[in-house]
Amino acid sequence: MSDSAVAGPTADVPRPGLPVAVDAMGGDHAPDAIVEGARRAAAELGVPVVLVGRPDVLASIRGDLDVIEASQVIAMDDDPGASVRTMKDSSLVRAAEAVRDGKASAMVSAGNTGATMASALLRMGRIKGVARPAIATPIPVPGSTPTVLLDAGANAECQPAWLVQFAQMGAVFARERYGIDEPRVGLLSIGEEPTKGNDLVKATHALLAEPGALGRSGARFLGNVEGRDLMTADVDVVVTDGFTGNVALKTLEGGMRALVRSVVDALGATSVADEAIEALMPLYGALDPDTTGGAMLLGVDGVCIISHGSSSATAIVNAVRVAADMVAAGVVDRLRAAVGTG
Amino acid sequence: MSDSAVAGPTADVPRPGLPVAVDAMGGDHAPDAIVEGARRAAAELGVPVVLVGRPDVLASIRGDLDVIEASQVIAMDDDPGASVRTMKDSSLVRAAEAVRDGKASAMVSAGNTGATMASALLRMGRIKGVARPAIATPIPVPGSTPTVLLDAGANAECQPAWLVQFAQMGAVFARERYGIDEPRVGLLSIGEEPTKGNDLVKATHALLAEPGALGRSGARFLGNVEGRDLMTADVDVVVTDGFTGNVALKTLEGGMRALVRSVVDALGATSVADEAIEALMPLYGALDPDTTGGAMLLGVDGVCIISHGSSSATAIVNAVRVAADMVAAGVVDRLRAAVGTG
Repeated sequence: MSDSAVAGPTADVPRPGLPVAVDAMGGDHAPDAIVEGARRAAAELGVPVVLVGRPDVLASIRGDLDVIEASQVIAMDDDPGASVRTMKDSSLVRAAEAVRDGKASAMVSAGNTGATMASALLRMGRIKGVARPAIATPIPVPGSTPTVLLDAGANAECQPAWLVQFAQMGAVFARERYGIDEPRVGLLSIGEEPTKGNDLVKATHALLAEPGALGRSGARFLGNVEGRDLMTADVDVVVTDGFTGNVALKTLEGGMRALVRSVVDALGATSVADEAIEALMPLYGALDPDTTGGAMLLGVDGVCIISHGSSSATAIVNAVRVAADMVAAGVVDRLRAAVGTG
Repeated sequence: MSDSAVAGPTADVPRPGLPVAVDAMGGDHAPDAIVEGARRAAAELGVPVVLVGRPDVLASIRGDLDVIEASQVIAMDDDPGASVRTMKDSSLVRAAEAVRDGKASAMVSAGNTGATMASALLRMGRIKGVARPAIATPIPVPGSTPTVLLDAGANAECQPAWLVQFAQMGAVFARERYGIDEPRVGLLSIGEEPTKGNDLVKATHALLAEPGALGRSGARFLGNVEGRDLMTADVDVVVTDGFTGNVALKTLEGGMRALVRSVVDALGATSVADEAIEALMPLYGALDPDTTGGAMLLGVDGVCIISHGSSSATAIVNAVRVAADMVAAGVVDRLRAAVGTG
């Protein structure tokens, strides 16, 4: 199956049957955990997968998976722009090219986030009409579907019109990913009133409040929401600039980690430690970033899934699943219809 | 004691023995919980306290405490600027005037945060040389001193030079409040490298990295930190604009609330619920905003403690304690020395 896929057409539209390209070299636990996840995804999900990376490294661990060769590896802390420009034979650039060239249906990487964005943007290009791609990250909500936060870090400086597009794209993603018919969109601010917030938020609020601002995306604008709403079922999509979004995301990650560690420490010292911690496992599982399937870069002309740098094999299985689901849902075409000017 | 205090001098410098003015009308649980807290503070801490509010409301609950009369109440959702301008006989404005006029050593309010800031700023004025006051909020860190986050919401739009002053003021606060000799100051960003962040952060980083930028405050600049560092012992003071700071603070509050509720639900369904939840009580106590003693508005010419809107009586006891401690430490003079141009 992957043979025919690699030899497939160069048309822009991915076909069912094309493999998901997994950057085997990116991530804190690459290549072993990444390759293990890719192999499990192929076996357990029946999704065709192709690895991208150094053949010498992958030869002994690739199993039945095909390899798209790439001799270079962009490190986690390399400068994104410079590395993508100069390392044209890197696994990230080659993965993005595979999608562009119709050799893969989607790309998945747990590597350098900035370089992943840059590779996808430079090789796949933007959807026509999209000003800036944005990272959409699912925030787990106990007992409910996740809240989609975007932009979670692609654009540190934003303009109001970009945030309107983020709202439209986030709504499409929430519908295709979580089956929410009429996603409720909130604008992240520091008070519910339209007058609250910084200049960017106030200008964006005015645009989003115009009738039809979200029309083609099928979403509903709730107005401003606050940081405390992120982990509730009160909103489906939260829109913000990439600086604020990234701070919120990492603040939440750090807070969860500190609290979970403290809870385990406190329970571990009791006589009921085993049963108590056992009872909390489903909650930890629900909050574990490895289970969310990763973030998606919305607005590029292809499916690009950005997994957490700390991704385990299970995280890669889930990321491949999401990538295949988003391809099957035709999410890029749906984004084009919701946002594009053409 | 409070008689002589209310009749005290009009000099700017608070004297020991002056009472702490507690806004009896502000907060979700005002006036009952606020007055109960004020009475407990006077009894348990030996700190003189004066209530500010409507005499008719307070007559039956004030106990031995004196009352500074104020006929108006600014509601939690009133517009801060307009309400402070038009409600000159409100408890908030009168509390700030009591500090200005040397009738109180400090003010404490759990009411409308914006109106508290506006009252303090308009009545007490700024410390000479301070561009903008900032809200310094302690973020609890399990097993360590809290991290001081500022600005937590006073200034939605900031300039780089203001953030440098926030760093200086936050360092003074961390030293006087938590006994940290050489506070480590981090700039909140979305990556550790000086090139990461939005335009404000990059410009501020350049200023803070100059030799002597924090000199008079005795602090040390660590460089950029991320949201995940807030609840760790790796940094003492985190500086950011008031929009980002408020989003981070509320995101953390919401996340903690969601997780604590989920933990209690999961444990509550087990046979070891009582013992497990009992073991977690000290942790919940450490994370409870009521125990932190509230935030402090740094940069106004007087001590102003901003308590959470949901403050219980215990929260007010802790806020009065912090107010008295900050007065005793001469924190306003120390801020003046660290920041002021004079």
